[in-house]
Amino acid sequence: MTYVLYYWPGIQGRGEYVRLALEAAGAKYVDVALVPEEEGGGVPAMARYLESDDVQRPPFAPPFLKVGRQLIGQTANILLYLGGRLGLAPRDEAGRLWTHQLQLTIADFIVEIHDTHHPIGSGLYYSEQKREARRRARDFLAARLPKFLGYFERVLERNPAGGPWLVGTQLTYADLSLAQVVAGLRYAFPVASRSALRAHPRLRALHDAVFARPRIKRYMASKRRLPFNNHDLFRRYRELDA
Amino acid sequence: MTYVLYYWPGIQGRGEYVRLALEAAGAKYVDVALVPEEEGGGVPAMARYLESDDVQRPPFAPPFLKVGRQLIGQTANILLYLGGRLGLAPRDEAGRLWTHQLQLTIADFIVEIHDTHHPIGSGLYYSEQKREARRRARDFLAARLPKFLGYFERVLERNPAGGPWLVGTQLTYADLSLAQVVAGLRYAFPVASRSALRAHPRLRALHDAVFARPRIKRYMASKRRLPFNNHDLFRRYRELDA
Repeated sequence: MTYVLYYWPGIQGRGEYVRLALEAAGAKYVDVALVPEEEGGGVPAMARYLESDDVQRPPFAPPFLKVGRQLIGQTANILLYLGGRLGLAPRDEAGRLWTHQLQLTIADFIVEIHDTHHPIGSGLYYSEQKREARRRARDFLAARLPKFLGYFERVLERNPAGGPWLVGTQLTYADLSLAQVVAGLRYAFPVASRSALRAHPRLRALHDAVFARPRIKRYMASKRRLPFNNHDLFRRYRELDA
Repeated sequence: MTYVLYYWPGIQGRGEYVRLALEAAGAKYVDVALVPEEEGGGVPAMARYLESDDVQRPPFAPPFLKVGRQLIGQTANILLYLGGRLGLAPRDEAGRLWTHQLQLTIADFIVEIHDTHHPIGSGLYYSEQKREARRRARDFLAARLPKFLGYFERVLERNPAGGPWLVGTQLTYADLSLAQVVAGLRYAFPVASRSALRAHPRLRALHDAVFARPRIKRYMASKRRLPFNNHDLFRRYRELDA
C-alpha cells in the first residue's frame, strides 16, 4: 500500500504532522507537493480533489491522504486512521481515544499559534493585521502558551510508564506532533519559548527523543523536510516575541 | 450504562453537541452542569477532574464524558466514541472516518464563529476587543461563512442517498452538530445568516429535519435545553452582524 499525501508545496504546515508519522514508521508514500506539476503533482493535483464535482466525499482543505480510492481529510483524522496501521497508537480502544484526544488538543494549540500572526483573517496579509497580531501574541504568550505547555508537561508526568512518551511505553503520532510543535515554537518565538520551556523538562526531553530517532534524523537531513519559513504556521516576527 | 457529562453551567457551548447526540439517541445520562453544587454537581464537580493530581489522563478543558472509570475529552472525540454505541455513525470504517472528518470541520467552523467576538483573547472581555471583533466578523461574514456553508451544502448535495443527512440514509452526530450550528448562526447573525442561508436549501432542510425529530423536540421543550445567550459561543452583537 502506497499512501499519497496532498498538501501545499513549500511549507511544512499541517501536512508535516502526517509526514512525521509516515516517516517515523518507514511507510511508503508519495508527497504530491514534492512532485513537479509537469509530472502530475503540485497544486493542480491537489486542487482537483478540492474543486472537482465528481468527488463524493470532498475534503474541506488540505492535507488529505489518498489510500486506494478512499480520501481522508482533517489532520487528526488522518493520524487516527494511520495510527493503528503504522503502529503509532495503542492497541486498546481507551488508549486510542486518549491518543486522539491529545492530538485534538495539539490541533487546538496549533490554531492558537497560527492566529498570533493572523488574528483577523487567514486570507489577509500579516501586514494588514500587525497591530492586532501584537495584541493577540501578547495574550497568547502570557496566558495560552503556559496553559498548553503546562498541560502537556502534566500528561507526560502522569504517564505511569515514566517517559519519554505521552501514552504508555511506545511512540505515538501525538508524540511526533508535539515534538514538531516544540520545534515550531522555538523557531517562531525564540525568546519566549526558551524561557517558557525552561520549566518543562519533560517536553524538552520528548522533543529530543523524537528528533533522535534514526528514521526521523534521516528525514530531517533529507530534502523531503522543508525548513521553517514565514509563509507557514510557525512564523518568526521579532515584534511578536516578547 | 449511564453517561456522565461535565460542562460549564449556564451555556450550551461545546457541551451542546454531546447533549444533542445523547438526547437524539434517548441515552441515559447525567448532565452535571444541571446538578446543584449542594448535590455534588456544577463547577466543583467538573473542576475536580481538571485540577486534581490523581487524574491520570486529564482533559484539557470541558466538555468531557465519564463512562465508568474512563474520562473522554474533546467534543469530536466524545462523539467518535458515542457514535458507534448510540447508532449515530455508520458501521463501516470509511463511513465512520468520513463522519468524524465532517465533525472536525464543524469544530473548525465553530472556532471561527467564536473568534468573531473574541479575536484577541478568550480570557479578555468582548468590550476589550470590540474594534478587532468588528474587523474579524467582517472578514468572517465575507470570506469564511460562505466557504463553510458552501462546503456543507456540497456535501449534502453529493450524498448519493439524496437527503436530508450528511452521510448515507441515517442521522449521524454530525447532522446534529451542523443543525445546532445553523441555529446558532441564526441567533448570532440574524441578518447575515438569513441572506447566507438563502442559497443553501439543503442546509436549511437539514436543520429542520433535525429539530423535527420527536426526541429533539422534547429536548428543546425541556428545561435541559438552555437558551442561546451572550456568554456563549454564539453571541448576538448587532455591530458584528452586517
